Amino acid sequence: MIPKYGDADVLELREIADPEPGPDEVLVEVVASAMNRADLLQRAGQYPAPGPKPLFEIPGLEFSGRIGSVGSQVQRWSVGDAVMGIVSGGAMAEKVVTHERMLQSVPEHIELADAAAIPEVFMTAHDALVSLGDLTSGGRALVHAGGSGVGTASIQIAKAIGAQVAVTCSTNKIDPCRELGADLIVDYTKHDFVEEVAVWTQDQGVDVVLDVIGGDYLAKNLQCLKIQGRIIQVGAMGGPVASFALGALLPKRASLIGTVLRSRPIEQKIEANQRFVAELLPRFEDGSLKPVIDSRYQLADIAAAHTYMETNANIGKILIDI
Amino acid sequence: MIPKYGDADVLELREIADPEPGPDEVLVEVVASAMNRADLLQRAGQYPAPGPKPLFEIPGLEFSGRIGSVGSQVQRWSVGDAVMGIVSGGAMAEKVVTHERMLQSVPEHIELADAAAIPEVFMTAHDALVSLGDLTSGGRALVHAGGSGVGTASIQIAKAIGAQVAVTCSTNKIDPCRELGADLIVDYTKHDFVEEVAVWTQDQGVDVVLDVIGGDYLAKNLQCLKIQGRIIQVGAMGGPVASFALGALLPKRASLIGTVLRSRPIEQKIEANQRFVAELLPRFEDGSLKPVIDSRYQLADIAAAHTYMETNANIGKILIDI
Repeated sequence: MIPKYGDADVLELREIADPEPGPDEVLVEVVASAMNRADLLQRAGQYPAPGPKPLFEIPGLEFSGRIGSVGSQVQRWSVGDAVMGIVSGGAMAEKVVTHERMLQSVPEHIELADAAAIPEVFMTAHDALVSLGDLTSGGRALVHAGGSGVGTASIQIAKAIGAQVAVTCSTNKIDPCRELGADLIVDYTKHDFVEEVAVWTQDQGVDVVLDVIGGDYLAKNLQCLKIQGRIIQVGAMGGPVASFALGALLPKRASLIGTVLRSRPIEQKIEANQRFVAELLPRFEDGSLKPVIDSRYQLADIAAAHTYMETNANIGKILIDI
Repeated sequence: MIPKYGDADVLELREIADPEPGPDEVLVEVVASAMNRADLLQRAGQYPAPGPKPLFEIPGLEFSGRIGSVGSQVQRWSVGDAVMGIVSGGAMAEKVVTHERMLQSVPEHIELADAAAIPEVFMTAHDALVSLGDLTSGGRALVHAGGSGVGTASIQIAKAIGAQVAVTCSTNKIDPCRELGADLIVDYTKHDFVEEVAVWTQDQGVDVVLDVIGGDYLAKNLQCLKIQGRIIQVGAMGGPVASFALGALLPKRASLIGTVLRSRPIEQKIEANQRFVAELLPRFEDGSLKPVIDSRYQLADIAAAHTYMETNANIGKILIDI
């Protein structure tokens, strides 16, 4: 729980009453959850959860586990099914309740305790690159923070749909990005990604930029963009204010699209979930996609997991065993 | 012609050879053209025309007139038909050649010499508000420069499709905007449009902002926007650099889309033209839409037309009789 906002040591384990599933909801016995940067922001009071406050002061945006009970109208699931999914909070708990159409079956070859590394980053990357960014076979994407959870998912998704992908990352994350299949890797500590992308695309630019940084990156992202390209902004870690030549958007007919998953209304979350289930879940089954797991922590050590994530050292996901 | 870039007095009338229509093109005997802000930019060397230079040094982005001759493959048109349309340059001339699918029939009740006031601003407004901005019945738009050509077209289009529209304008343009049907008119010399739009929409914001200004307006436009709203940027008259809180795009899941018509490839121009023909031309026929004409100049007085447009005094279009 986050009883008050602050550093990692504010986090507390508490016993509370079990949540009750409504008619079209299920209760999941959680096996694992996973860290997201949003957890750090939420803990610091900078990313308030939507909905009634008491329930959602439990952090955790994703889970894997088994169905413990089902509401009276639930059609698709039975007690014991292995499932995973995103929620707008409350997943770092033994039990979580969610709408039945927000669930995903755990792919055949994935361990249940590893599956919690999938939903948030693969859905975010899929929604941003494909649903909002219209990345297709033959297209090119530029993804910042290539070694992050969303970055490692993005590389795999781009390759799995037949697109090419460039990433930026720090020196120690180059090898993992290469192993996942990134076509161009720019070490941002040494090279300018605008120049590297220009050479890589023969001055054509990329179709989609997926960015979590913002700030100074905005003007550079725009330089990297093809005619009618899209910048999908899923974070703004690079500072609150961005300055750029707005006029440069016009001749490129470029789009800058801000997005978050958590605050969407339920029908839009279900739509994103079902599109993910249809388009990407089969690619986990056939082995094209796999969760990238950096490390695991016990729920009792959640403060250590937060502190570790703040160092930006992780490559892929930090799992929390419940 | 624009023999060199500079002030209005660089413009020259010259005799040149007639253009020749290709197989799927027509030659139009031009009756009228009309001024666009792009003409001022082009004359100053800030808006280079696409394509081979000699031909397009003739300004003029729109025309009305009669078909003078047709290419061997032309299906839809015959000599003598009254037509109008946009071109990427060359319309301020006695003859212009264009693709047959880029033409529009002049609506029944519109004078041929007035029809040149229609294509560029109504297509720009339709493409921005409806095609890119997804404005629909029941929606709300905010349009800056409400008294301009694009502004007066936008007000009419919004009302014609059952949407509501707010505009900003200077004091002397309030009455014309009201007569065209604007639901909220903000005199930007006296009031803050962010506050007025908040009251008007009960803090919900608008679905679409159509902006030609940029600069300081960007952050304000974003404040005016509804969840999942779209800012369509068709100009950046307010200065080269815009600074704004990029992070504010995220919770609103807002889109900022830059656009121009002129540099699009032919297939996209035809698509925009045909959509305009299907969706808006019938609304001129039924009287819902009408060209807004500020004044007329003879082609010999083109320098005076340029100088007049630079004062920003016009309400609607400045026509050029050829």
